[in-house]
Amino acid sequence: MDQVDWKPIRSAQYPLHQQIYEYLKQKILNGEWTVGVKIPPLRILAEQLNVNRSTVVAALEELAADGFIDSRVGYGTFVANNTWSTISSGAAPDWKTYVDSGVHKSNQSIIQEINRSEFRADMIRLGTGELAPEFLPRKKMKGIFQQKTAQELSLSYTEPKGSYSLRAAICDYLKRKGIEASPSSVLIVSGGLQALQLISLGLLQKGSVVFHESPSYVTSVNVFQSAGMNLLGVPMGDKGMKTELLPKLRRQHHASLLYTIPTFHNPTGHTMPVLKREELLQTCSHERLPILEDDVYGDLWFEEPPPQPLKANDRQGLVLYMGSISKTLGPGLRIGWLVGPEQVIDRLADIKMQTDYGSSTLSQYAVAQWLQSGLYDEHIFHLREKLKFRRDTAIRILEKYYSGIATWNNPAGGFYIWLKLYEAVSMDKLFKRALKAGILINPGNIYDYKDSSHIRISYSYAEPAQLEKGLKRLAEIIGEMSRR
Amino acid sequence: MDQVDWKPIRSAQYPLHQQIYEYLKQKILNGEWTVGVKIPPLRILAEQLNVNRSTVVAALEELAADGFIDSRVGYGTFVANNTWSTISSGAAPDWKTYVDSGVHKSNQSIIQEINRSEFRADMIRLGTGELAPEFLPRKKMKGIFQQKTAQELSLSYTEPKGSYSLRAAICDYLKRKGIEASPSSVLIVSGGLQALQLISLGLLQKGSVVFHESPSYVTSVNVFQSAGMNLLGVPMGDKGMKTELLPKLRRQHHASLLYTIPTFHNPTGHTMPVLKREELLQTCSHERLPILEDDVYGDLWFEEPPPQPLKANDRQGLVLYMGSISKTLGPGLRIGWLVGPEQVIDRLADIKMQTDYGSSTLSQYAVAQWLQSGLYDEHIFHLREKLKFRRDTAIRILEKYYSGIATWNNPAGGFYIWLKLYEAVSMDKLFKRALKAGILINPGNIYDYKDSSHIRISYSYAEPAQLEKGLKRLAEIIGEMSRR
Repeated sequence: MDQVDWKPIRSAQYPLHQQIYEYLKQKILNGEWTVGVKIPPLRILAEQLNVNRSTVVAALEELAADGFIDSRVGYGTFVANNTWSTISSGAAPDWKTYVDSGVHKSNQSIIQEINRSEFRADMIRLGTGELAPEFLPRKKMKGIFQQKTAQELSLSYTEPKGSYSLRAAICDYLKRKGIEASPSSVLIVSGGLQALQLISLGLLQKGSVVFHESPSYVTSVNVFQSAGMNLLGVPMGDKGMKTELLPKLRRQHHASLLYTIPTFHNPTGHTMPVLKREELLQTCSHERLPILEDDVYGDLWFEEPPPQPLKANDRQGLVLYMGSISKTLGPGLRIGWLVGPEQVIDRLADIKMQTDYGSSTLSQYAVAQWLQSGLYDEHIFHLREKLKFRRDTAIRILEKYYSGIATWNNPAGGFYIWLKLYEAVSMDKLFKRALKAGILINPGNIYDYKDSSHIRISYSYAEPAQLEKGLKRLAEIIGEMSRR
Repeated sequence: MDQVDWKPIRSAQYPLHQQIYEYLKQKILNGEWTVGVKIPPLRILAEQLNVNRSTVVAALEELAADGFIDSRVGYGTFVANNTWSTISSGAAPDWKTYVDSGVHKSNQSIIQEINRSEFRADMIRLGTGELAPEFLPRKKMKGIFQQKTAQELSLSYTEPKGSYSLRAAICDYLKRKGIEASPSSVLIVSGGLQALQLISLGLLQKGSVVFHESPSYVTSVNVFQSAGMNLLGVPMGDKGMKTELLPKLRRQHHASLLYTIPTFHNPTGHTMPVLKREELLQTCSHERLPILEDDVYGDLWFEEPPPQPLKANDRQGLVLYMGSISKTLGPGLRIGWLVGPEQVIDRLADIKMQTDYGSSTLSQYAVAQWLQSGLYDEHIFHLREKLKFRRDTAIRILEKYYSGIATWNNPAGGFYIWLKLYEAVSMDKLFKRALKAGILINPGNIYDYKDSSHIRISYSYAEPAQLEKGLKRLAEIIGEMSRR
């Protein structure tokens, strides 16, 4: 049962518990809750239905009297019977075994909790790596479908690599970053995460190792591990990744790829200096170790543009380059791109066709329009201003409440401040206590499981007043936890 | 290199071969064609660049003289050097090994060829399982973003199960098919193929077996095999699947799921009668074998509505039900839905979040609008008429040219006629000969590898005149092949 589902109507002529009884009974009779399934605990049901626990109890007692549910002491309440079944001889499949035995890993439970809680209206979201809805051009997006244009809106399947107009528009856009690519070397993907998935399924062997900065966004998703690869964080020095360790690490591990976010890194907000970029390219070239460059934040600089992407100085086809409009125009569009050697793009396009037959043509059309018309540049220009203001606000709030308990960086772009607490705390406890106080955070151990002193603060989502309220309360919680 | 990429300009002041030389050199210098990669054969290059072979040869000779490419007798021509590389010490990664060693299977080569050839403008497409562009409401689709509506367009990430408005609209729509479901039991997916992928990753064990009708669409995709499952075709009788064999087959194999397309089956066009549906439900219920019901063609009936979906008579949560607007509003939207027990939907929603963070909100918004406004029903009403006319046309053409060489069914809806040749032929040869004649067909061995006498004819794509021209020529080719 998710957050926004049915709720009983208080003004209705039927009592609340009667409405709830009917609702739950229908779920059982329709096979949405199958026989043997455990129903949510009383507390959760009452919360989600927005009624007193006693009301839920009344409904459950009636269901039990009818034989639909049954409770086992210490285990909870289960669906016991589906007496009105049209097929009396059988029972439901053992779905629990199915759910437990699938190949793909579940999200970490903390990530699942974040995914769910992000849709609770009452939450102050300090961790959300996403632009606030007010930054997203929703009205202009509708208008884009009204513009006169040479580009036709297709509702058919696109070519395996994606819409040609969009790929051509992306090549023009990339040229300004110093990247030379032709449309045949570009694959349209449904966001950066899908690019990672296609690479994991299409290019890597089971058991091989993906290097990454430590901490890194990539450890918060299971995309490589679910496909049978392992992740290994490369130690970091003052200037970023210790590239001098790569040859040795490569000999020790069956490394197949190095994943990096050189610009406005997630979660640290750090940007790799030019010299480090050159060093990394040279080392990986020497090791013949491909680089996957994640550049989804590159357009969001504040004072000055960041150094050129690694891909701009790659003449060998060493770098696979990922970009996206998820962090600029809106993640809901689900449009990103992957640029690399043609044979690699061909292979990944074939897998993409087998995965989802291509990305939405509405989204592809819209993004091509934004890029071609110049509206994208205009949007980004204003977005940078607004986001810079948010960053300044966040830094000011941190100075006010955190100078005694933490240090932090001042990011030159992107979404993130990497807050380092002076005292280590239990990340799981901190997450739960904050959640209880209505504050959603991304604790550091999502990005490095050993971490116990960082929090990723995102200034892209919560409004300034909320940001202050949330950060203030969070500082109090941290204070309380340290004092114990 | 794909079909629509760069072509030399005939009116330019530079000779064609010079333009081609520059174009190919840039591809090499930019690392799109990496050192060691085999370049496309002369014939293909000349075809794609739309020039004489001798022009391509002139360009290649110049590249060879500069040391960029090199040919090995009997093997082809390879990129030899990238002398202007900024990083002189290293070489490109061995991408070929990467491409060859990925976990995911490639598409069957015949499917890859179909995917590519579908974008050649000169092809008569007799096999394409897709509505012709003129059937798709492209203009109205743009208009849908202008309608006044209570529904907000979101550009943010959606909830794990997809937009609530869309799920609620789908529940209303399904009610008319006799399916009772609440939004929490519905998952929005990026088309039916993604539903299969999520199920294969989220619910099934490696080595388990998926039963299906034989022939079946599902054998034309690698989605289950790439995740480590096996497919097994259940023998068919006059009235469809021989359900009486299921208990024994289940004992012999580690069967975890039965996949079926009961209505307007792909590729046979067959519709499962009511009695067979009941029998199948009872048998699977008894065996506790879950059913995956693929109902993407159900709205496209001609004379009378088909029997209710299996899901409408499932009170136990035995059936996972798939639907989509790909065959009605347009595959480019990439919107489908999966309905099933809540715990299953919860699990698959979590994997969906790990795969692509949800489907396009533009597409979700548009489909919800179509369904809620009644425009969908109106569109389907007219679409049925037009599609029925196409079916009648196809049958008339078959009667004219095929009565001596094949038999066929008269489908009551959907897209497909399953042409059965009196004489077996080599499917691969037939496919290639037709392709050479500019006709793209889907040979029967895609749907059952042992098949050598069926062709899937789709009347949904080619215009009547093209359909006649293509079918006539195909009959001649079949005739020529049989006479040998």
